[in-house]
Amino acid sequence: MVTSPIMCLRYCLTESNYLLLLTMLQNLKERSSVKFDRMLRTGRTRLKNAYVWYLVCYFAISCDAADTNEINIWPMPVSVSFGSGKLHLSNAFELKTKGSKFADASGILKEAFSRTIDIVRSSHVVELDTSKVVPSLVLRGIHVVISSPSDELQYGTDESYKLYIPAHGNPIYACIEAKTVYGALHGLQTFSQICSYNLSTRGILVHQVPWTIVDQPRFSYRGLLIDTARHYQPLQVIKKIIDAMAYTKLNVLHWHIVDTQSFPLEIPSYPKLWDGSFTIFERYTIADAEEIVSYAKKRGIHVLAEIDIPGHAESWGFGYPSLWPSENCTGPLDVSNDFTFKLIDGILSDFSKIFKFKFVHLGGDEVDTSCWIITPRVRSWLHKQGMSDSDAYQYFVLRVQKLALSHGYEIINWEETFNHFGSKLNPQTVVHNWLGGGVAENVVKAGLRCIVSNQDKWYLDHYIRWQDFYSNEPLENITNHELHSRVLGGEVCMWGELIDAADIEQMVWPRAAAAAERMWTSYDKLAKDPNDVRSRLSHFRCLLNQRGIAAGPLEGLGLTRPFGPGSCYTK
Amino acid sequence: MVTSPIMCLRYCLTESNYLLLLTMLQNLKERSSVKFDRMLRTGRTRLKNAYVWYLVCYFAISCDAADTNEINIWPMPVSVSFGSGKLHLSNAFELKTKGSKFADASGILKEAFSRTIDIVRSSHVVELDTSKVVPSLVLRGIHVVISSPSDELQYGTDESYKLYIPAHGNPIYACIEAKTVYGALHGLQTFSQICSYNLSTRGILVHQVPWTIVDQPRFSYRGLLIDTARHYQPLQVIKKIIDAMAYTKLNVLHWHIVDTQSFPLEIPSYPKLWDGSFTIFERYTIADAEEIVSYAKKRGIHVLAEIDIPGHAESWGFGYPSLWPSENCTGPLDVSNDFTFKLIDGILSDFSKIFKFKFVHLGGDEVDTSCWIITPRVRSWLHKQGMSDSDAYQYFVLRVQKLALSHGYEIINWEETFNHFGSKLNPQTVVHNWLGGGVAENVVKAGLRCIVSNQDKWYLDHYIRWQDFYSNEPLENITNHELHSRVLGGEVCMWGELIDAADIEQMVWPRAAAAAERMWTSYDKLAKDPNDVRSRLSHFRCLLNQRGIAAGPLEGLGLTRPFGPGSCYTK
Repeated sequence: MVTSPIMCLRYCLTESNYLLLLTMLQNLKERSSVKFDRMLRTGRTRLKNAYVWYLVCYFAISCDAADTNEINIWPMPVSVSFGSGKLHLSNAFELKTKGSKFADASGILKEAFSRTIDIVRSSHVVELDTSKVVPSLVLRGIHVVISSPSDELQYGTDESYKLYIPAHGNPIYACIEAKTVYGALHGLQTFSQICSYNLSTRGILVHQVPWTIVDQPRFSYRGLLIDTARHYQPLQVIKKIIDAMAYTKLNVLHWHIVDTQSFPLEIPSYPKLWDGSFTIFERYTIADAEEIVSYAKKRGIHVLAEIDIPGHAESWGFGYPSLWPSENCTGPLDVSNDFTFKLIDGILSDFSKIFKFKFVHLGGDEVDTSCWIITPRVRSWLHKQGMSDSDAYQYFVLRVQKLALSHGYEIINWEETFNHFGSKLNPQTVVHNWLGGGVAENVVKAGLRCIVSNQDKWYLDHYIRWQDFYSNEPLENITNHELHSRVLGGEVCMWGELIDAADIEQMVWPRAAAAAERMWTSYDKLAKDPNDVRSRLSHFRCLLNQRGIAAGPLEGLGLTRPFGPGSCYTK
Repeated sequence: MVTSPIMCLRYCLTESNYLLLLTMLQNLKERSSVKFDRMLRTGRTRLKNAYVWYLVCYFAISCDAADTNEINIWPMPVSVSFGSGKLHLSNAFELKTKGSKFADASGILKEAFSRTIDIVRSSHVVELDTSKVVPSLVLRGIHVVISSPSDELQYGTDESYKLYIPAHGNPIYACIEAKTVYGALHGLQTFSQICSYNLSTRGILVHQVPWTIVDQPRFSYRGLLIDTARHYQPLQVIKKIIDAMAYTKLNVLHWHIVDTQSFPLEIPSYPKLWDGSFTIFERYTIADAEEIVSYAKKRGIHVLAEIDIPGHAESWGFGYPSLWPSENCTGPLDVSNDFTFKLIDGILSDFSKIFKFKFVHLGGDEVDTSCWIITPRVRSWLHKQGMSDSDAYQYFVLRVQKLALSHGYEIINWEETFNHFGSKLNPQTVVHNWLGGGVAENVVKAGLRCIVSNQDKWYLDHYIRWQDFYSNEPLENITNHELHSRVLGGEVCMWGELIDAADIEQMVWPRAAAAAERMWTSYDKLAKDPNDVRSRLSHFRCLLNQRGIAAGPLEGLGLTRPFGPGSCYTK
């Protein structure tokens, strides 16, 4: 009943190889001017036969090797070994924590375990009755052993884990060892990608056992920026972004909360600030912000809050007009007015109660000082202080840095602050690159720390290919290895001018995932040619879709439709 | 501290009026070539002042009237009266069913009630402690009284409901009366739209009490087509489509399961059919299909299954090549082969165990019979039967109709069958219009029933404005009122050539919701000019976003980005 070499291959190849073959055939089809789809299925022409048999031979030859070399885990762990066995995931799959020092009073681990089972089972209805399967073939649960009793999540919290899945035993349990619960969460994410629904058994199979995975992130700061000032993002949308960040092992949600266009966040110390929101429906209460922070923490994700001052703050003056140089010249924030700094101090004080991350982001980019120069009151103040507008920009940033430090924060500022007065920045400053490549090199040489977000590669609102997201190397040209630790990591930025609740997911995924591997995976394991990981990323994109995340086709540069009918795995 | 007329209005206007004002200002801004955003906030120019004060006067005058005229419920109920009171939704909001004849053994009502609370609370963290609010201001629960004990969902099942929300009482309960649980579910959806988070109380308010709503659908068939053959749609994605269908009171998920490109569904009688799936990962097991049907039923939604034969079935031959006229000419299905009909009979037999809807869709569109003519074996069979290819098309469709009837189904066929041999179709046939307008008129005159999906207005894969979706009238030009009942309703179609898991939600919503009001709301309540309901639809779109549905901007024609920063309510 086999009708074509393709159908034959569908059974003799491994799943991943089959997908790769499909991809190649799809590419072939796209290049061909004839109706290749029909050809492919019916063997109509000699051309088709020649190509298909070539590919069959190619895959038949490479089949054995690929059997043991293909792993569909994203991002790739540091160290992986695996076998060729299979286990059935028990329907009564359970969490064991004997010997763990982590008491899980807040339920972080239990909830994460429960979510793991949910996502593993989300693609199909599970029908297999595992109580009727030979016990030696059933994986009964995961034994999680955590050595730290604390659930504190802070910059630098250990995220390493080891995952063992034996091939034999009775009963059989997988084991995750981690220093902290947050390492264990990563272990569960990796585990979820080793499981998949199996059509033959109608159950969840754990593939390629036995597994030994030893893993830890390359960078401790792996960020994604969202912007709720250009468009408000509802809580449900932010939560889904966080869900998918956890799937990709990103660990910092950089929340660009407010900007020129709107001020959606409640600030108890200055309750008129959110008068600058678009509407009363497009606001975050303090309780909402706490909910976001808590939701993120339960997934091992920090929330970095930003106020982008003095340049991106026009909306602040809605509630407090004296923050503007004048009603006719409404930005940057009035440097000459002590109230400006008193209010910022109030914001930072309120922030420090909600946003417990070590860092606060103070912005500092794109400051156009003309309003300071042309507004008589501010100009005369500048004159009195003996400051140029440029001096005043420095004065503003440094004064606010001190305020942030006084609230226990370390500081992140956009790179213009470094470019203008780098030597004056507080040594606690982390410089956030965005203008282009090559900045980190200068920042770390100057003794400061850096986060890499060069817009030509890591801006999600730009039309950039996933391959460029993947290839962007935070340590590029930093030859002195002692300086590497000053690059905390990187961040992909989803600026919100053209992004609302409808298009955000597709603009972020899967391109942010491509960058996530760059930030997680050890350098030697990263593909030199990103196309080498295309099949694995494609698999991961389809996995995101199965989990309800609207990740788009790899070939898209953000919001895009698939180019025509076909398998997810070929897009 | 009021800084501008806009800020003043923010407090004195009703929420809905405020939004309308914002929309007008936003439009103004888009038309203006100057930096209106800044102008608007700072009062920089005379132009701005003139416009803004004009609008202020306009709204000040119309304010009182609008207070009682604006209702943000989508789709609009048949009969609505309401007051100006407010109640707080109890944190212990409960379901009472005393006096109801519906025992809810399957949990449909309980689960729907629970989901109602979840969606009402999804936009913000609720902080109000309602146990400390005066009891006479707290809505304690909903009392649902259902007169039918059955949970059977079938075409024509009564969907009417009455919703009362009193303004006074102690304790106060809302009341839903319905003939069936499915009417009650609609009542809960309407209720959910009357509740909203309130920033002053930090709780959920029930607005404009007392309410009396009497409601029922205009058409009993209100469909949305999804196509899982051109792209596979994961279960989670289909479930979210169903969720939003329930929000809009659509009630038929037309599942165009298989087509030329792929055959993702398991057919136990012919287990090789899904060899025609794109990959083994892109398949629906019977259990998956049952899950979809069950999930939909719990939301009052029928699932209409389709096999589109003989013309859209090339993928069937992957598993059973003898269904093709030949390996070189692979469609339509071989009319000369009895196996073709035996297999279809098997499919319909399997369907009848899963898809309990009264109707099955047998397709029948776009049949290109050339393969029948040029394939010697088929041509000789035609000759022997004394049939032209056109006769054979009719023969095929009518023979399959009989098979469907024998399995207890009534039949839906695409309109080409009517156009070619309308008088021969079984009287049980429902003709599914798609080619253009004016078809229903002819169909009902011919004594058959019709579903309207004219592609120029109701195809979601086409670039059509929401206003055209709203305005498309299924009964257009049918002057004889006795024939109206033969128009079962309508359906918007989301064909899948360029639609995958990433873009489907934005392509469907909110345009499908515009059509949903056309199909639900009584004719006299429908807006003659769709722009009159723009503000209400915009509000509903933002509500969908709050509930995690990626509904796009109204101005988009499907997949689109918002045109620039701003409020959801102005897009």
